[in-house]
Amino acid sequence: MFISRSEETMMSAGVVAGTAHRALADAVAAALGTAPVACELERFPDGELRPAVGPVRGDDVYVVQPTGPAVNEHLIELLLLLDACHRGGADRLTAVVPYFGYARQDRRTRAGQPVGARVVAEALEAASADRLVVVDPHTAALEAMCGIPVEMLTAVPTLAAALAVETSDRAVVVSPDLGGVKQAEHYAGLLRRPVAVVRKTRESGTRVRAEELIGNVDGRPAVIVDDMISTGATVEAAARVLRSCGAAEDITVAATHGLLAGDARDRLGRLRLRRLLVTDTLAPVQFHGAPLQVRSVAPLLADAINRLHNSEPLDALLMRS
Amino acid sequence: MFISRSEETMMSAGVVAGTAHRALADAVAAALGTAPVACELERFPDGELRPAVGPVRGDDVYVVQPTGPAVNEHLIELLLLLDACHRGGADRLTAVVPYFGYARQDRRTRAGQPVGARVVAEALEAASADRLVVVDPHTAALEAMCGIPVEMLTAVPTLAAALAVETSDRAVVVSPDLGGVKQAEHYAGLLRRPVAVVRKTRESGTRVRAEELIGNVDGRPAVIVDDMISTGATVEAAARVLRSCGAAEDITVAATHGLLAGDARDRLGRLRLRRLLVTDTLAPVQFHGAPLQVRSVAPLLADAINRLHNSEPLDALLMRS
Amino acid sequence: MFISRSEETMMSAGVVAGTAHRALADAVAAALGTAPVACELERFPDGELRPAVGPVRGDDVYVVQPTGPAVNEHLIELLLLLDACHRGGADRLTAVVPYFGYARQDRRTRAGQPVGARVVAEALEAASADRLVVVDPHTAALEAMCGIPVEMLTAVPTLAAALAVETSDRAVVVSPDLGGVKQAEHYAGLLRRPVAVVRKTRESGTRVRAEELIGNVDGRPAVIVDDMISTGATVEAAARVLRSCGAAEDITVAATHGLLAGDARDRLGRLRLRRLLVTDTLAPVQFHGAPLQVRSVAPLLADAINRLHNSEPLDALLMRS
Amino acid sequence: MFISRSEETMMSAGVVAGTAHRALADAVAAALGTAPVACELERFPDGELRPAVGPVRGDDVYVVQPTGPAVNEHLIELLLLLDACHRGGADRLTAVVPYFGYARQDRRTRAGQPVGARVVAEALEAASADRLVVVDPHTAALEAMCGIPVEMLTAVPTLAAALAVETSDRAVVVSPDLGGVKQAEHYAGLLRRPVAVVRKTRESGTRVRAEELIGNVDGRPAVIVDDMISTGATVEAAARVLRSCGAAEDITVAATHGLLAGDARDRLGRLRLRRLLVTDTLAPVQFHGAPLQVRSVAPLLADAINRLHNSEPLDALLMRS
Amino acid sequence: MFISRSEETMMSAGVVAGTAHRALADAVAAALGTAPVACELERFPDGELRPAVGPVRGDDVYVVQPTGPAVNEHLIELLLLLDACHRGGADRLTAVVPYFGYARQDRRTRAGQPVGARVVAEALEAASADRLVVVDPHTAALEAMCGIPVEMLTAVPTLAAALAVETSDRAVVVSPDLGGVKQAEHYAGLLRRPVAVVRKTRESGTRVRAEELIGNVDGRPAVIVDDMISTGATVEAAARVLRSCGAAEDITVAATHGLLAGDARDRLGRLRLRRLLVTDTLAPVQFHGAPLQVRSVAPLLADAINRLHNSEPLDALLMRS
Amino acid sequence: MFISRSEETMMSAGVVAGTAHRALADAVAAALGTAPVACELERFPDGELRPAVGPVRGDDVYVVQPTGPAVNEHLIELLLLLDACHRGGADRLTAVVPYFGYARQDRRTRAGQPVGARVVAEALEAASADRLVVVDPHTAALEAMCGIPVEMLTAVPTLAAALAVETSDRAVVVSPDLGGVKQAEHYAGLLRRPVAVVRKTRESGTRVRAEELIGNVDGRPAVIVDDMISTGATVEAAARVLRSCGAAEDITVAATHGLLAGDARDRLGRLRLRRLLVTDTLAPVQFHGAPLQVRSVAPLLADAINRLHNSEPLDALLMRS
Repeated sequence: MFISRSEETMMSAGVVAGTAHRALADAVAAALGTAPVACELERFPDGELRPAVGPVRGDDVYVVQPTGPAVNEHLIELLLLLDACHRGGADRLTAVVPYFGYARQDRRTRAGQPVGARVVAEALEAASADRLVVVDPHTAALEAMCGIPVEMLTAVPTLAAALAVETSDRAVVVSPDLGGVKQAEHYAGLLRRPVAVVRKTRESGTRVRAEELIGNVDGRPAVIVDDMISTGATVEAAARVLRSCGAAEDITVAATHGLLAGDARDRLGRLRLRRLLVTDTLAPVQFHGAPLQVRSVAPLLADAINRLHNSEPLDALLMRS
Repeated sequence: MFISRSEETMMSAGVVAGTAHRALADAVAAALGTAPVACELERFPDGELRPAVGPVRGDDVYVVQPTGPAVNEHLIELLLLLDACHRGGADRLTAVVPYFGYARQDRRTRAGQPVGARVVAEALEAASADRLVVVDPHTAALEAMCGIPVEMLTAVPTLAAALAVETSDRAVVVSPDLGGVKQAEHYAGLLRRPVAVVRKTRESGTRVRAEELIGNVDGRPAVIVDDMISTGATVEAAARVLRSCGAAEDITVAATHGLLAGDARDRLGRLRLRRLLVTDTLAPVQFHGAPLQVRSVAPLLADAINRLHNSEPLDALLMRS
Repeated sequence: MFISRSEETMMSAGVVAGTAHRALADAVAAALGTAPVACELERFPDGELRPAVGPVRGDDVYVVQPTGPAVNEHLIELLLLLDACHRGGADRLTAVVPYFGYARQDRRTRAGQPVGARVVAEALEAASADRLVVVDPHTAALEAMCGIPVEMLTAVPTLAAALAVETSDRAVVVSPDLGGVKQAEHYAGLLRRPVAVVRKTRESGTRVRAEELIGNVDGRPAVIVDDMISTGATVEAAARVLRSCGAAEDITVAATHGLLAGDARDRLGRLRLRRLLVTDTLAPVQFHGAPLQVRSVAPLLADAINRLHNSEPLDALLMRS
Repeated sequence: MFISRSEETMMSAGVVAGTAHRALADAVAAALGTAPVACELERFPDGELRPAVGPVRGDDVYVVQPTGPAVNEHLIELLLLLDACHRGGADRLTAVVPYFGYARQDRRTRAGQPVGARVVAEALEAASADRLVVVDPHTAALEAMCGIPVEMLTAVPTLAAALAVETSDRAVVVSPDLGGVKQAEHYAGLLRRPVAVVRKTRESGTRVRAEELIGNVDGRPAVIVDDMISTGATVEAAARVLRSCGAAEDITVAATHGLLAGDARDRLGRLRLRRLLVTDTLAPVQFHGAPLQVRSVAPLLADAINRLHNSEPLDALLMRS
Repeated sequence: MFISRSEETMMSAGVVAGTAHRALADAVAAALGTAPVACELERFPDGELRPAVGPVRGDDVYVVQPTGPAVNEHLIELLLLLDACHRGGADRLTAVVPYFGYARQDRRTRAGQPVGARVVAEALEAASADRLVVVDPHTAALEAMCGIPVEMLTAVPTLAAALAVETSDRAVVVSPDLGGVKQAEHYAGLLRRPVAVVRKTRESGTRVRAEELIGNVDGRPAVIVDDMISTGATVEAAARVLRSCGAAEDITVAATHGLLAGDARDRLGRLRLRRLLVTDTLAPVQFHGAPLQVRSVAPLLADAINRLHNSEPLDALLMRS
Repeated sequence: MFISRSEETMMSAGVVAGTAHRALADAVAAALGTAPVACELERFPDGELRPAVGPVRGDDVYVVQPTGPAVNEHLIELLLLLDACHRGGADRLTAVVPYFGYARQDRRTRAGQPVGARVVAEALEAASADRLVVVDPHTAALEAMCGIPVEMLTAVPTLAAALAVETSDRAVVVSPDLGGVKQAEHYAGLLRRPVAVVRKTRESGTRVRAEELIGNVDGRPAVIVDDMISTGATVEAAARVLRSCGAAEDITVAATHGLLAGDARDRLGRLRLRRLLVTDTLAPVQFHGAPLQVRSVAPLLADAINRLHNSEPLDALLMRS
């Protein structure tokens, strides 16, 4: 018959692991019932990188490389890996970038700046990527910056499942700024709890910014949710507002990307959080100041890769926006 | 001397007016001390368009064409105008699109959708635009969707100046949703008044959305501000919340783009607004239901074109984001 | 063995129907033994379109959308549909555009014009089309304007078969201008009848254009053939010449594309044609002024799609040029 | 003032002469009051070419190279010259290709063919040409095949001026096929004489092609006009028809491009033409069989280059289509 | 299971033979158990080419065409063949160019030159080649000049096998210049013999170049190896140095590409070589001056094509660099 | 007159300094009689960079940024700077990359590798560079890897001038490998001294590599020259061979790029060199183990920029190859 979905996929798939997060790539491959394609990375004394990937000719290749710190190293390595797979004959080339660095640079906030997210997108396309898979990117407009298709997965259900087991019925989901409200509502919907929002506001024409809490948190535990935790300053400010507004001391923080850069450790340590919950989109950093818990996005990525490879819909895995 | 800014610009500039809004193009040209390049548009009985532009060879050309309703007609006409100027020898080609249609389609909100804003951006680049000028686009990430430079101007100061003269000292600037807060704060800063926000919220895990007003409006006049007014439904909802929260009856609405589509006239008429203030980024629609006032962006566009042509900074004219 | 044509095609095929002519897309899909992929089109109050196509990941997709009136609406919708399929993971993307609008703009006939056909071709490529299928385009050079492969099908055999049954043995095939002679000869060959041509000529250096008939039509029925009927003015002129040259009153008109725009209905009604024969490359217009008969190109398109999908030659279906 | 056309052009212009027709390039440069940029061509024993052009940095460069026989040599040389100028820093790069080879391959006439004209167009763009100037290309759709602007000049007025002085008042302008009618009418308009056309026709469904003459030539001298004379076979056939239809023996032939390939010399010699009039778009071939007269397109090309360089309209020089 | 290499390749492969070297293409196809796709080449009297290839729709196509003399003819023909296959629906298109002309132009050696190798690479990409296969290109950086993957095969093992049977145990492998040392070492490794090098050196600041032999050749037979023999001048100089340094009279020459251009025949004839060993990457030239032996690269090319088609590694076939 | 070189350049030029080597950029700007455009670089705690450049609209901009260690940081910063200048309205954008990292990756030396030099070249083009200026790149084929013009300057005359004053008349210029012979001959020609070469050779089929010295160094001082010194291992090996072949103890080393990475300090310290002479293409590293002398390329770069800006030939500054 003319229109038939084929029963079997003839093209092999392969997972290529960059060095940014080999453990994640291994877990993704394992979840797919395989091992990553052999791949080495030579580092020259002067800092140049030269990867060598195993045979990928004719394959549907997924290069797993988050571009978190050291972001520029990981980004160049990703470009080189993509080129290596392209020249090695990969049939289709998907960059799987669980954390997409430079996503915050989606516009110029003052004259003379670049649009970093677009620069990265164009470099990936120039390096022959056919498709991009990311998890909870900082901006939902990321796909509009790319000519190639972008699948924006979300780890919110993964984290919400972890939150569900131990979070009080009285807890409130808190977005630490206005930009995070949609994601907070995604959490809140899954957890069946209300949302509050911290807003940095201008209360009059003369007074400068103050922080304000929108929503009722009186005496309640709070679950602050965000897409990423960089230095922890945003979380710290939110916690301060929560406490000044009478929320309970019991604060949990959940975020997809645990960058935990700079003095995040000390800052978050001082907050005496109940839990600090992140995923493994980035390689773990040493972190002792809070009861850090990590949930893996490997099953999510493996599910997405499996669906892409077998031409199935991804809808259920996608970010809400 | 080696590094010298030349005193005079040798390249001529020209304004080309599409049919979407000839009056605006005329005003822009007049503000620049010139008239638009002669330009005709042939419409075939079957709906095809064929423009013919006057001599532009060697010129720095600015094609003025907002892509509001009839958006698809105006968009195709813009592509044809750009191609005509390109083939006619324009040295540099700037699309001046005061209202940029399809900007809201900056992501897929469900499977199977296109990313319309990107489709438009690529079509403009394919038609040889070198640069894009827009006013208050719906998404600040618009520039990241384009490979060519995009200057995102704002009409907020223009409208704020009009608001300043007649607005009560007690008035509150109101953003009708969370996405508009940054723009509302821009207004509020210029008007030295506080901001309130209407938020559609999920108060508990089981209850669905309700609207909530953040900020104190008790007995005060309100100035609802937004980037565009399409059907007026958002404004209507905001006015309802304001009144239920005890705001004064005195409501003003200000927005850069007055699409006023569908049954906007009736809906806004029922609100008995003090003023409905928009700019002329779009050609005027017949509209009798409110005390409509229009401020022109022609001076803003002329200023921007003049700076671009003379290689001067645009910072003061740009949208805040 | 090394060189073998595979027995079965593993990739699924799918037909996506734009709104320009759903009935045709349905008929094409039915002829292929399937139904179109589910597809919705949202129309915003301000005229923006947003389609959503059903699952096409991994498929060989054929988007059926003639770009006749409203040509600009249908063109933008086509670009959005292509982008939607591209981002949705289509493996190969063929734009099936039975009537290709703007094909007449294949050159600048005066200074300052665009080359509309090229603008459209580039927009289609920018929107990720891999291949284009058209029927009897106005210019055979269309394929040279596209970087992607173009298959130029012809409906002449379809229409000739319809003509064969009822056309007098004495009839003459008439091309209404010199540009249509090749197509007229294609008809004449299939119908085994002679060709006559209407020529707009300059009989001397001072006299302006007059119309002249080349070929013997004395007392014979005529079959005027053309690629498209827009306003009917060309047909009307040809009929006038035919009658002034002594042709029989019995005139039939056949054309692939029945645009029937402007006052075509009245104009053709006055001609008292025996038959007005067109195909359904365009959605039907209300038309009562002539004995309109419509032959479907659905079998032709289905045959072409089937051959393309199964990697078989299309030669027999192609336009002669 | 803002909108001003500058009085002087600051960028220098330069003419680069390929080897295809140095005499023409010299004449063009002379007409512009200059000499071609120094340019050498190295030919390796194995046939590779390596040009070296003199300094062109910052210049507005015009590379003059018709791609007539040996067409492939001249075409590759042109690509190398363009690349040399691009890498040498030319500011704007115009390929002046008086005879554009491969223009006849503007479509596939049977399965498996390339579209040669498009292949050439894309190679020129890949080699960094910014603009193309041609004279009477075989197809007016040439410009639609190029993304860069194409100026299609015509030598018809040049040749018509030469014809005017010596052509009988009774002469008829004859197009040797239907495709040439528009050009013939351009001649006829300038010469104020009528047009006749030779048509290869299919007189009935069973009889194959015969040639027919449309228009009255009885006893009159004829001026056969065409865009190019390749082997002379088309002219020969037209002359045969003319004579069989009672035209006078006095036949003149005029064409822009005198390829005069194959056995054109013998074939045209046998026709005892009054005159064989061509231009020098191609380097002269040895030709003794007819009273060959050559009119130069150097003034036309120099005029066009001068207008392009000084940003003036070219309308008066362009081909009619 | 998820990651599985499919057992059978579903896409057919086809060999298309250009006219540059049909015998080689036939041999390649025969080695693959097939015949080349039918392919004709029309040559117009004015030198334009128009190929027509048989059905390739959906196929994995390999176009075999070395671009040796007449290099420009063969290059344009290759571009046309690629375009024909692209438009004919080839699924993947590999240019197999055993001898890659213009490879020596990989940089500008003086101002005003083009970079010919890049010009050719871009033209091939513009003509839709997806991949390139070459044999012993003059520069190993060729692949860096191409955006598409390039497989650089080597014929050294093929020639070394032929040398092994008849070459004295005492022979020395001689590189005629420094650039050829790596290849000479490849030969030497396979033949287990030492390497000597001819060096054109500058012995003092005032004396100009002299030739010097590095390595011991005293009384020994020599095997001069190079990537190509063009006019034979390099070989002649090497032989002179060898003899002046006391090498035995017994000299063999081996090179992948036997261009044998200009007066190579006479020059090499005078050297009284034991053997002149080349491959058939180029069509044979008439050559009587030396005991010419030819080894075919058809098995090498067939092996490479087979591996590419079946997604197997090519490592063993690749040039060492 | 038509062809005239304008007396004054109307476009301003500007130097933008990346952070890789601000001192060099300052020196270049000073030599041009100006100061760099103001430019800041923000470094986020997680390692992302965001530069902001001062006004460059309408300017001829030169971004100075060598991509030595930390190579990946500097490369990404360069891409962001280029994008910032492009979006900021630079009229022409030249990347001045005195040391071009990844130049050694100009081919795959084993399966599975990328071609790093090409990846970098494409990223630069994607980031809108119009032109590239480098100094003594590792491969002269670099320009063939770029679609944009590349000017390959050389610091050999700069270093040779420094060598001339203090180098013994008896000294020999030594290339430490075959790949460096051309550059060594450039030095030798300027210094009027002979060349010797270290060759890693395969003396017989069974013995592995040994090092050999070609040329007479007996009792003479040596000047080892190379394009770059990375870890010093190549220099160390050359010095060992020199000493074992009887050269004098007096060894000088000269190289354009002093990477001095890894344990270069210790390794070169042990060699007791007379002088270690490099340029400042790279920011200085702390280095105490040898009598390091640095000559600046600032005058060379300033000269090149001045010529490029004023459209003068660069020939005298270019690398010989």
